[in-house]
Amino acid sequence: MLFRQVYDYIITRLERQVWQADEKLPSIRQLAQELGVNRLTVLKAYQLLKQNGKAYVKEKSGYYICPIDPKQMQDEHPEIHPGSFNGHLKNNLSEIHQVPVIYQFSQALIDPNLLPNLFLSEYVKKVFDIYPKLMGTYSTAQGDEELREHLSQYMVRHHKAQLTSSDLLITTGAQQAIDLISRNYIRPLDAILVERPTYSAALDTFRSYGARFLPVDITPEGYDLEKVEMLMKQYQPRFFYMNPTFHNPTGYTVPSGQRKQLVELAERYQCLLIEDDAFHDMFFDQTPPPPMFTYDTEGWVVYIRSFSKYVAPGLRISAIIGRKAVIAQLTTAKSLADNGTPLVNQKIFLHYFESERMQQHLEKLRIALQIRRDIMEEEVAATGWKWVSPKGGLNLWLKLPDHFPVESFLNECFRQSVSFVPGTICDPLKEMREWIRLSYSFVNEGQLREGIRRLVDIARSMK
Amino acid sequence: MLFRQVYDYIITRLERQVWQADEKLPSIRQLAQELGVNRLTVLKAYQLLKQNGKAYVKEKSGYYICPIDPKQMQDEHPEIHPGSFNGHLKNNLSEIHQVPVIYQFSQALIDPNLLPNLFLSEYVKKVFDIYPKLMGTYSTAQGDEELREHLSQYMVRHHKAQLTSSDLLITTGAQQAIDLISRNYIRPLDAILVERPTYSAALDTFRSYGARFLPVDITPEGYDLEKVEMLMKQYQPRFFYMNPTFHNPTGYTVPSGQRKQLVELAERYQCLLIEDDAFHDMFFDQTPPPPMFTYDTEGWVVYIRSFSKYVAPGLRISAIIGRKAVIAQLTTAKSLADNGTPLVNQKIFLHYFESERMQQHLEKLRIALQIRRDIMEEEVAATGWKWVSPKGGLNLWLKLPDHFPVESFLNECFRQSVSFVPGTICDPLKEMREWIRLSYSFVNEGQLREGIRRLVDIARSMK
Repeated sequence: MLFRQVYDYIITRLERQVWQADEKLPSIRQLAQELGVNRLTVLKAYQLLKQNGKAYVKEKSGYYICPIDPKQMQDEHPEIHPGSFNGHLKNNLSEIHQVPVIYQFSQALIDPNLLPNLFLSEYVKKVFDIYPKLMGTYSTAQGDEELREHLSQYMVRHHKAQLTSSDLLITTGAQQAIDLISRNYIRPLDAILVERPTYSAALDTFRSYGARFLPVDITPEGYDLEKVEMLMKQYQPRFFYMNPTFHNPTGYTVPSGQRKQLVELAERYQCLLIEDDAFHDMFFDQTPPPPMFTYDTEGWVVYIRSFSKYVAPGLRISAIIGRKAVIAQLTTAKSLADNGTPLVNQKIFLHYFESERMQQHLEKLRIALQIRRDIMEEEVAATGWKWVSPKGGLNLWLKLPDHFPVESFLNECFRQSVSFVPGTICDPLKEMREWIRLSYSFVNEGQLREGIRRLVDIARSMK
Repeated sequence: MLFRQVYDYIITRLERQVWQADEKLPSIRQLAQELGVNRLTVLKAYQLLKQNGKAYVKEKSGYYICPIDPKQMQDEHPEIHPGSFNGHLKNNLSEIHQVPVIYQFSQALIDPNLLPNLFLSEYVKKVFDIYPKLMGTYSTAQGDEELREHLSQYMVRHHKAQLTSSDLLITTGAQQAIDLISRNYIRPLDAILVERPTYSAALDTFRSYGARFLPVDITPEGYDLEKVEMLMKQYQPRFFYMNPTFHNPTGYTVPSGQRKQLVELAERYQCLLIEDDAFHDMFFDQTPPPPMFTYDTEGWVVYIRSFSKYVAPGLRISAIIGRKAVIAQLTTAKSLADNGTPLVNQKIFLHYFESERMQQHLEKLRIALQIRRDIMEEEVAATGWKWVSPKGGLNLWLKLPDHFPVESFLNECFRQSVSFVPGTICDPLKEMREWIRLSYSFVNEGQLREGIRRLVDIARSMK
């Protein structure tokens, strides 16, 4: 345990260049004395530095510092370099999105053209008549009472959940929800359970707080619950971050049988389940099983729901639902993070969320997405790539041939104005090299066909 | 140094109740072995636990755990308990704001009735005609290009600053700016320079990242620059967080002579200056000296400016301005925090920020605030309390008689529906017990008089 702190102590000094490249590290004796640890602890730390390519040994002289490569710093296995002292912040996904391309298959977002924009704009104008002082008024940190009341009633009606407005915290998008939960629960070196693969930006957020990962494979059948139990028992993880419904990136859905059992495991081992339910409304043929938190009586599930994502994504209205003690802590974190989501966004969203127009919109949207999924599947059918056809959500998760050079494939795609998400960044272990995520939600049908054809041609040319 | 890590290691286990109250701590020998440190290190940690009331000694038996009091946990001197592993998140100011009262003298916010609400609402409707798909579109993490272009040009025109749109990051209010900077620069146990007194929520944010404080008194003449230099030299602090213009809570303004010297010190000792310029436009008789960052050629100043605060505070549009490398890092932090401030807010704000109507509004607002300051000063004149009349900003910073029981005073005020900010939470050392902050910006003139009279009566009754 402690040699890791000595290791991190050295790493931060390297990052800050207090100690320069090719400089000699203090002798083991010196540093042991300086830090008040025994020499074996320092030796273990130095050996880990060497192992991670941070230091090299000169015969009969000692340990010397290697020039730092920030990228490599990131690429290390999180269990070895847990990123405590949140060294270099990194967000792999947003780096990909910064590349300007025409055929955006990396964006798991709704095509703005699929939204009832005119209706929305007209609607907004009404809102400012209802709340003439909206522009001058702040929200509380927890979020607008009226909106929380609305959303809690919605959850009660749709999911027979037992909750009131005080069990909700409004966040600026689901990303902020993930960040606030991490900030509140993750301490450096803490172990957390994560799906393999999972949402890349969540992994980067967890890393930024120094988490170590305990990966659990997700399959069309769900998780290996024996492994989950073993990991909970052995490591007492702070929480299990999961996306059990139309999972990102795979599209899989954890069956209801497992949901009940997972809640029982959570209670038994006092491990929170962070249920990120981003795609619940985006089903195709049939509605998904009820959220995990509806099985929860003891309050071990913390539920993240993005409400605006399919309705008015520009407003960024999400909520965290959990037991009162959890919401109270997260509300403090929220007050430190930004003092509360702007009231304007909350009030604009509030009234029309449940309007009939919105329900019609959701139905149309599901059909439009299903059509786009079909088009994408048609266009990749001939490639021989493997995937499980998603029954909801926004993504196709594809297995390319073994040893396929995905990295140069991605670069060539960028060059030809196509983007996708490489599997490695969705994998807590940074493997899954032959997998890619293609989102069919963001580009229109015509561009979808063109873009995928182009992508498939590039792939062919790689062989 | 290291005994603090052992100390924190124990503290986190107490917080998580791995070790229970009145349980015997492992013997010094045991723990030294378990952690691989020498016994003196553990002894020092145990002694600190005792000193901080976390542990007690039983003769001939050893160290035992005291029942935890989370509040006390906070009240410790941050230099002793630096709050690394950000133990309990706390936001003293937002706790005060959660108390519902009529006479809100704790809110350093603009009275919504002072804003051109009708104009704003009408205006918004136009914006949605200009951007029909606004509700469906996301912002980049760094913020809307068009808005950053606007704001950078504004800074160039008004402050002769050398910058472009790429030197700006849009944040959801200044609180988020402070949080992102802390997240990026503060590692547990890092020392930072802070004014004494300063903005309470900033202190709580810094604590949540485990900072230790190096306080620098702020007076009507500014800072003791020799002390600042000494502290920079001795502790190499990560940054100096300052609010040099109509300072919160005191209202003082650091003279331009010192500003230049501070930038030189920052360069010499490579200590960033975080210049929080919240009240720049809220001057009464004359405009304040130019921001510190206009003196900065090497990029040692990171400038926080809340642009919407006086114009349309509900929109929460602030910006961080800094050298490109800094903005790049903070943009990554922003992408992890919430993926970017909602575009709706940015576009609504964008166009009318510089409109003539806005300029007229600002002038009216300054006059209105000056009148309210005068009323507040009239009403406290007879108390014998001491203060320096502010030349801008939103607050009066008052010295009550020595040994005045401010805590029971505050509770009685709450009971009688009056709120204010006690000086202790603005003090990095949690002293300044006889000081209070009264904001004259939030309640209207009539209520201001009534409320202060009530507050003064309560104060009299305390004697």
